[in-house]
Amino acid sequence: MKPKPHIVNLPVYKPGKPIGEVQKEFGLSEVIKLASNENPYGPAPSAKAAILGVLDEISLYPDGSAIELTSELAGRLGVENDQILFGCGSDEIIALIARAFFLPGDETIMADQTFSVYKSNADIEGAVSIEVPLKNGTHDLDSMLAAVTEKTKVIWICNPNNPTGTIVSRTALESFLDAVPSSVLVVLDEAYYEYVTDSDYPDGIALLPRYRNLAVLRTFSKIYGLAALRIGYGVASPGVIQLINQVREPFNTTALAQAAARAALNDQAYVEECRDRNARGIVQLQGEFDRLGLDYYPAHGNFIMVDVRKPAVDVFQQLMRRGVIVRAGFGLYPTWVRVTVGSAEQNRVFIRELEAVLQEESVQA
Amino acid sequence: MKPKPHIVNLPVYKPGKPIGEVQKEFGLSEVIKLASNENPYGPAPSAKAAILGVLDEISLYPDGSAIELTSELAGRLGVENDQILFGCGSDEIIALIARAFFLPGDETIMADQTFSVYKSNADIEGAVSIEVPLKNGTHDLDSMLAAVTEKTKVIWICNPNNPTGTIVSRTALESFLDAVPSSVLVVLDEAYYEYVTDSDYPDGIALLPRYRNLAVLRTFSKIYGLAALRIGYGVASPGVIQLINQVREPFNTTALAQAAARAALNDQAYVEECRDRNARGIVQLQGEFDRLGLDYYPAHGNFIMVDVRKPAVDVFQQLMRRGVIVRAGFGLYPTWVRVTVGSAEQNRVFIRELEAVLQEESVQA
Repeated sequence: MKPKPHIVNLPVYKPGKPIGEVQKEFGLSEVIKLASNENPYGPAPSAKAAILGVLDEISLYPDGSAIELTSELAGRLGVENDQILFGCGSDEIIALIARAFFLPGDETIMADQTFSVYKSNADIEGAVSIEVPLKNGTHDLDSMLAAVTEKTKVIWICNPNNPTGTIVSRTALESFLDAVPSSVLVVLDEAYYEYVTDSDYPDGIALLPRYRNLAVLRTFSKIYGLAALRIGYGVASPGVIQLINQVREPFNTTALAQAAARAALNDQAYVEECRDRNARGIVQLQGEFDRLGLDYYPAHGNFIMVDVRKPAVDVFQQLMRRGVIVRAGFGLYPTWVRVTVGSAEQNRVFIRELEAVLQEESVQA
Repeated sequence: MKPKPHIVNLPVYKPGKPIGEVQKEFGLSEVIKLASNENPYGPAPSAKAAILGVLDEISLYPDGSAIELTSELAGRLGVENDQILFGCGSDEIIALIARAFFLPGDETIMADQTFSVYKSNADIEGAVSIEVPLKNGTHDLDSMLAAVTEKTKVIWICNPNNPTGTIVSRTALESFLDAVPSSVLVVLDEAYYEYVTDSDYPDGIALLPRYRNLAVLRTFSKIYGLAALRIGYGVASPGVIQLINQVREPFNTTALAQAAARAALNDQAYVEECRDRNARGIVQLQGEFDRLGLDYYPAHGNFIMVDVRKPAVDVFQQLMRRGVIVRAGFGLYPTWVRVTVGSAEQNRVFIRELEAVLQEESVQA
């Protein structure tokens, strides 16, 4: 067989252990997963009810155009229907953009660290990823701009940035977009948009009329609590959406996801409640990190990146044995872990276990 | 923006109208959809129950490796876990194979007519599709073999073939696989496998030990009645599965689909019942076509391709106005429609309306 040469040695993504496996392996009755930035309060109850409402139609193909969901979302966002496209999570939109834009040898620019799916999809297409180190945990937009060449096809900005949780401000983003050549697509990944309370945080969708080379990604996997259902979306000018649609499989989201997303979208009071609870969780965790003398980046999503001052992979392992799963393994940040903001009680247990782990001899640096 | 040049003018897939829209447009109280080869009896009741069982986990990411489903399916098929990979329908597996194998200028061989997704994915990657006309509605394996060149990466065999419903026999397939260079991947699409009752029909999975360049596709969208949930799978040698996995998004199937698929798989009595009912439906429809003097191809899936001897697109439109949706628009078969085998009552209504349409002046050829 003759696969594309550049995919042969790519690593296969290794997902974290499911809760059930961690319980079994370490003999734990309860495990708290603060590893994947899921909503600890679950989805709006109406979203579950909506799934029950379509259970009798599961032998039928879903509406490949998601007409009703598209129309309701477009109304809410103040855009036209042809400016929206749905994916199997915003992950798939990233993959579709890579598939639509990259030929081997093309260049694409992203932060280091940022969401790993940008680079993995560039790798698949044989594109070269120019990874620009963060500055104080934040996108270094000046250096990213300086990295643009004639070969640059796409620039990825994750805002808030995963894993650091920092944001790029409205003025910084606008200056950047003014300076980027209009022939380069800028993808603004706003997976955590609904969590942000900082007034300097830009709304990417409000910028679309000014920048036709901008695409905004959002998702139902985070604050909407529908990660298991795999549904996210992209918003851009009709021309950009048309290009991405040309490489999309016709039936890429399930009927259940579409129904649940519609219901979740219509319960904005629940979204606000989750945002408020998350903001209180950030205050709680940051207060504890201050007490423990640990540095952290200012958090704007539903996660915090904290410097545990010991090998993060060891701390991750010790925490897992104690029933708390976080995330480590960020190349340029070998002593930092990323923890999802859980419920007040989950946060309390995490801090208790972290404190115990940090006092153990075994993980001394 | 600079997308890949060869995707810019690709057509965007236009899905058929949802039942609700057809009802509204033509003022119909009831519409029978026999257009997408869905199971008219729905999924096993246990599959719906399984969805209810995971409703409390929809805020969590699904198991990206589908460990439990993989293990249960591997046991049932008699293969190892690392020989299986799941996709958002087998559609996605086709897209992943294209993404893993094709560079611009590569060649790929398929029948004309066959499932359109092979060619659309080759187009996206800039690969050249060599379309070999069917012979009596059946894959012309000799001509497909003769079309192999040094540039050939993948050959697609749809068995039973969509839209004609014909099969390639075990001996014909084995001779073909013996002759195809081992450097060429052969994809055997068995989406309708579970419907086939003909003893000459080969089981692709039984052939895997002999042909390491073979990949078999199956799905839960057809006899298992889970089309809305988007879950299908590929089975091949571990090396081929590893290659495809390298271009797969980590979370490409939903937790609900995985749960429902496990339940559906465990109710083989229901699968047998659906197969028997479908076989009776084929006899019913073929008998009616004989009575009407219409030619048709021998059907082995849950659909029949019939020559209505008038412009198929007109017949399709007339049937839709009368509340029956079928499929037309097959390039080399301008007077043929494909109809899904429905329930006995659905088939009866379809024949009644078809007969009326064929007697109308307006669609005379």
